Amino acid sequence: MIGIGIVGYGYWGPNLLRNFADVDGCRVVGVSDLSSKRLAAARSRHPGIETFTDCFELIRDPRVDAIAIATPVSSHFELAMAALRAGKHVLVEKPMTATSEEAQCLVDEAARRRLVLAVDHTFVYTSAVRKMRELVDSGELGDIYYYDSVRVNLGLFRRDVNVMWDLAVHDFSIIDYVLPVLPCAVSATGVRHVPGEPENIAYVTLYFDTSLIAHVHANWLAPVKVRRTLLGGSRKMIVYDDVEPSEKIKVYDKGITVDGTTDGSTAYQLLVGYRAGDMWSPHLQTTEALATELRDFIACIEHRTAPVSDGRAGLRVVRLLEAASFSMAERGRVVELDALGCPV
Amino acid sequence: MIGIGIVGYGYWGPNLLRNFADVDGCRVVGVSDLSSKRLAAARSRHPGIETFTDCFELIRDPRVDAIAIATPVSSHFELAMAALRAGKHVLVEKPMTATSEEAQCLVDEAARRRLVLAVDHTFVYTSAVRKMRELVDSGELGDIYYYDSVRVNLGLFRRDVNVMWDLAVHDFSIIDYVLPVLPCAVSATGVRHVPGEPENIAYVTLYFDTSLIAHVHANWLAPVKVRRTLLGGSRKMIVYDDVEPSEKIKVYDKGITVDGTTDGSTAYQLLVGYRAGDMWSPHLQTTEALATELRDFIACIEHRTAPVSDGRAGLRVVRLLEAASFSMAERGRVVELDALGCPV
Amino acid sequence: MIGIGIVGYGYWGPNLLRNFADVDGCRVVGVSDLSSKRLAAARSRHPGIETFTDCFELIRDPRVDAIAIATPVSSHFELAMAALRAGKHVLVEKPMTATSEEAQCLVDEAARRRLVLAVDHTFVYTSAVRKMRELVDSGELGDIYYYDSVRVNLGLFRRDVNVMWDLAVHDFSIIDYVLPVLPCAVSATGVRHVPGEPENIAYVTLYFDTSLIAHVHANWLAPVKVRRTLLGGSRKMIVYDDVEPSEKIKVYDKGITVDGTTDGSTAYQLLVGYRAGDMWSPHLQTTEALATELRDFIACIEHRTAPVSDGRAGLRVVRLLEAASFSMAERGRVVELDALGCPV
Amino acid sequence: MIGIGIVGYGYWGPNLLRNFADVDGCRVVGVSDLSSKRLAAARSRHPGIETFTDCFELIRDPRVDAIAIATPVSSHFELAMAALRAGKHVLVEKPMTATSEEAQCLVDEAARRRLVLAVDHTFVYTSAVRKMRELVDSGELGDIYYYDSVRVNLGLFRRDVNVMWDLAVHDFSIIDYVLPVLPCAVSATGVRHVPGEPENIAYVTLYFDTSLIAHVHANWLAPVKVRRTLLGGSRKMIVYDDVEPSEKIKVYDKGITVDGTTDGSTAYQLLVGYRAGDMWSPHLQTTEALATELRDFIACIEHRTAPVSDGRAGLRVVRLLEAASFSMAERGRVVELDALGCPV
Repeated sequence: MIGIGIVGYGYWGPNLLRNFADVDGCRVVGVSDLSSKRLAAARSRHPGIETFTDCFELIRDPRVDAIAIATPVSSHFELAMAALRAGKHVLVEKPMTATSEEAQCLVDEAARRRLVLAVDHTFVYTSAVRKMRELVDSGELGDIYYYDSVRVNLGLFRRDVNVMWDLAVHDFSIIDYVLPVLPCAVSATGVRHVPGEPENIAYVTLYFDTSLIAHVHANWLAPVKVRRTLLGGSRKMIVYDDVEPSEKIKVYDKGITVDGTTDGSTAYQLLVGYRAGDMWSPHLQTTEALATELRDFIACIEHRTAPVSDGRAGLRVVRLLEAASFSMAERGRVVELDALGCPV
Repeated sequence: MIGIGIVGYGYWGPNLLRNFADVDGCRVVGVSDLSSKRLAAARSRHPGIETFTDCFELIRDPRVDAIAIATPVSSHFELAMAALRAGKHVLVEKPMTATSEEAQCLVDEAARRRLVLAVDHTFVYTSAVRKMRELVDSGELGDIYYYDSVRVNLGLFRRDVNVMWDLAVHDFSIIDYVLPVLPCAVSATGVRHVPGEPENIAYVTLYFDTSLIAHVHANWLAPVKVRRTLLGGSRKMIVYDDVEPSEKIKVYDKGITVDGTTDGSTAYQLLVGYRAGDMWSPHLQTTEALATELRDFIACIEHRTAPVSDGRAGLRVVRLLEAASFSMAERGRVVELDALGCPV
Repeated sequence: MIGIGIVGYGYWGPNLLRNFADVDGCRVVGVSDLSSKRLAAARSRHPGIETFTDCFELIRDPRVDAIAIATPVSSHFELAMAALRAGKHVLVEKPMTATSEEAQCLVDEAARRRLVLAVDHTFVYTSAVRKMRELVDSGELGDIYYYDSVRVNLGLFRRDVNVMWDLAVHDFSIIDYVLPVLPCAVSATGVRHVPGEPENIAYVTLYFDTSLIAHVHANWLAPVKVRRTLLGGSRKMIVYDDVEPSEKIKVYDKGITVDGTTDGSTAYQLLVGYRAGDMWSPHLQTTEALATELRDFIACIEHRTAPVSDGRAGLRVVRLLEAASFSMAERGRVVELDALGCPV
Repeated sequence: MIGIGIVGYGYWGPNLLRNFADVDGCRVVGVSDLSSKRLAAARSRHPGIETFTDCFELIRDPRVDAIAIATPVSSHFELAMAALRAGKHVLVEKPMTATSEEAQCLVDEAARRRLVLAVDHTFVYTSAVRKMRELVDSGELGDIYYYDSVRVNLGLFRRDVNVMWDLAVHDFSIIDYVLPVLPCAVSATGVRHVPGEPENIAYVTLYFDTSLIAHVHANWLAPVKVRRTLLGGSRKMIVYDDVEPSEKIKVYDKGITVDGTTDGSTAYQLLVGYRAGDMWSPHLQTTEALATELRDFIACIEHRTAPVSDGRAGLRVVRLLEAASFSMAERGRVVELDALGCPV
């Protein structure tokens, strides 16, 4: 029975607690938070749960084998490092850390101690994103032309990070998981509409060595919630709409024919024709992604294997966020990345 | 009775012919096109219409008072100039010309001859876009924070212009009409997925002196047709979905409260709260925009007034396209614009 | 070259005229209407078209080989009969006649004179409805369990017929075309919300010898336009949404498993389980149904074959409308039908 | 502190347990169920909760002041009566009982003992349904013309009740709450597609003394989930789409004008014109309906007041279900109802 300690009971902590409760092979030892009010909420909803105001006490607790961290980004590094040094496995909220240097340290420390270091890239555990990767890997889409994502809503204005670190990070983790190649450059633009607050709108473009391009629109100030991703390939194209209750993934047998055979009907069409075929929406399991992720985390601890979203994935995503932040600070200047994803 | 000559009977010409037929106060004298096959189509659908293979013959025809030009962009300048010099009023397809220099010449020539020069920015004649401008002008939206438009579909790969000149131009004309200020800088990124063909995906960002930002995603290679614009203000926000058969415009009484009064419920929310109110969808007239536009064109000729989308509007849009093209050629480098919209 | 005469230039006549113009092998000789104002509209849109205020003059015209009738229902019989007696082929608007007796007379007359008698059941010429029939015929849906259609909008209140004869007639013609069996009984309920006007809401249920059931909701007083049909089978189910610009037909690999193998997860599920599989949306041609229909009509005249929607189909549909009207007059009393579809 | 006992931990019980936990002024004493497996699930999710295999032991428990019953319909009466006789307040799952006679007995018993008897008509506690009633009461819709509801999905085939008692019951409770009048007659048709199982498709029509009509389509065998209600009035009309995450209620300023002023454009329109105006979607609170309902239940116990959905509402709904069942058994024969809603 693997003992779990949850550090932070704010927005995400309750989801961790609820889901760990349903995972076999582990039990939640306790929850820590600075606010006694939140801890009281935890106790009322989960009678008998132990609560701690001092997270380090929980981290040190001998009954605890693994620590799940759901605190503001700025504290991720200190808490995760303390947990690793205490010999505990770690699952840390995304983004893994505030800097790539911190992320690198965590990866090294975990490797040195042979501990499981996982980052909570929830989306890569969804049936929809896994299906996208499957379709990319199988070659069914052909060459990947573009990834375009709109992730907007009237959201909470966070003070610790801007909208790119809060929302675009999801797309960075999806891109890291689904696409077979790493970006070679990044450009980001952001605006803040509340003086002194972080950017609440961000447009990020990722460049690759091929004609593949990725673009993300993240926005905390949109009147409607949109979670729509277009994944275009030379043979087929996907629309992934995460707001849809079902049919989240639609695969279109559509594309262009460069020989120019075409429906005709217009004068403009010359060399390039296009073809429109059937649409297909694969049935997806409706299991909650977080539950899948936590089961994977526990299994990795038991077998000392690397989780799908391990520390290295977390590091790559933080590097991308960091490089994009450099670009955003210079109004979208293109920042080149080396083979490791570090700014050149 | 104002005599109309239509030059070009490809994709758009038939719409011009059909709509001019319903406008009082004018009659279509003839249609010209290089392709006799297309002219035959014109005759079969409009028995009795005169057709010309030599457009200049039509332009010179004394029965013709105004020329409507619906040919590839590269020929707009020569044809429009010829028509103006022949003393004819001109309605030219968008984009008005291939260069801002050409556009300037047409504007000057028309002014010198006191002729009506109109550019076919169809969208500014739609009930939806007019409603958006009305709501911006009335101050109902408050300060304008952003304009974000997605204009994608599996479209025709044009050879004469890229997707920005073909699709984003619509948003440029809408922005020019709806927003009270001119952009002070532009950045554009494009990719081509067919070697030797124009860019088929473009991302364009317009910067303004305020915190206002505009962004357009234009794509010829999307599996679904999307025509969605978000217009965000400090007091209200609009979703304009042109694919919707009705309720194209939705006005959301939503926004942020910087004093931080909030629904609470979360730890992240500090200074900035947000409010969610009713949504309202104004009833819009369903008259075809092109019909409205042509009536406006005829009325302007009769009263020698300037149309809503006059040569100056066409010039501003071409300047923006030109500057964006400079930026695209340098992978999104920000191009600063002067008070006239010319690259600095 | 088959000469066409169009009788009636109200709501549907213009569509007939426009579409006949695009069909090879025929030419429209003239249009007749009681209103000279409408005839003027016809001439202005189709310069050179001959117009008649006396429809019989047009029907008698030796240049006319076939008559298309688009007048109020009450006049269909007299006009169609006059045309047949003049030796002209006939295409008559739906519903074919006001009574089944009239319909029977037309069918007999056409048969006696070996003339083509077609009824304008436009929907059976749409790619969507044809695909539905194809899927039913192929057995892909398994046993057909139900047909449920909602056909509502804020529509024109007709004075000559009620909403069932105006809207539900479309579903009757689709059911007649798609389903392999004839109904054995019908029940209909209607309400009028404007005293003295025809019923503006109707609910119709068709019973079959099997467990198959069909239901239609027709409504002229709905705030939104809905055109949605569910076709449920033992193996697969179809959603046909005619308001969708694309993906009008969606085929769901869903159903029940009577052995009771199930996702479990609930206590209520005992013998009957259910399975959820992929959804598939076949690509459909976007040709206008009316054009297809008119081409079929002309081809049938050339080869003396029976059109898809011939007089017999028209007769069956009128019989059903008649029986449903009997039921509606008695507040939904079930009216049994014999093998011919006549009330027992 | 009001002690709660929950009888039945199948499909709905867990929701009751979770929501009671968040309501102030009460505590859940224990949960009973026949299945020890389900009770184990309750304990693992709610450590420290007391569980009982003998529901009567829980009902008798002196710490228990109120009993919530979430068992199959057939057992509702016996359990509710036992609880009332034990002096406990009762909240019973819908439908309240299997027969109106049973319902009447419960109402009488509760009145005699001055105990709160509530039936779980969850929908009448939703913001959407309350808004609908508010708009009806205020007269904003004008005279109510029709209520039309489609409540279909691929649902669980229950063995204890048919689809009308499972799904249409929701609409019956909404109609009972929203409309100002009681139906004067009912007609219902049902089909079963699995021999020996209850009807899985039902069409129910409710007649009123006015031209108001209500219709419900309930279906366990639909490929998509639809929860759409149209509420038509003489002045305005509502579309209530419960599947929408937001904008569940849309109010259309549309209707007919009997003087016949009209947009014109067509020949068919004579006396009756129609008007199309704005659409308005009021902002709705997103609180979970069940939480609101349980708070109301506790408050009613504290102040000995009658809940919104009291035993009498439950009785009226069961009477309607019963009468509809009579009709369904006779293939939709219209069953007249007296002033109390009992079959004449």
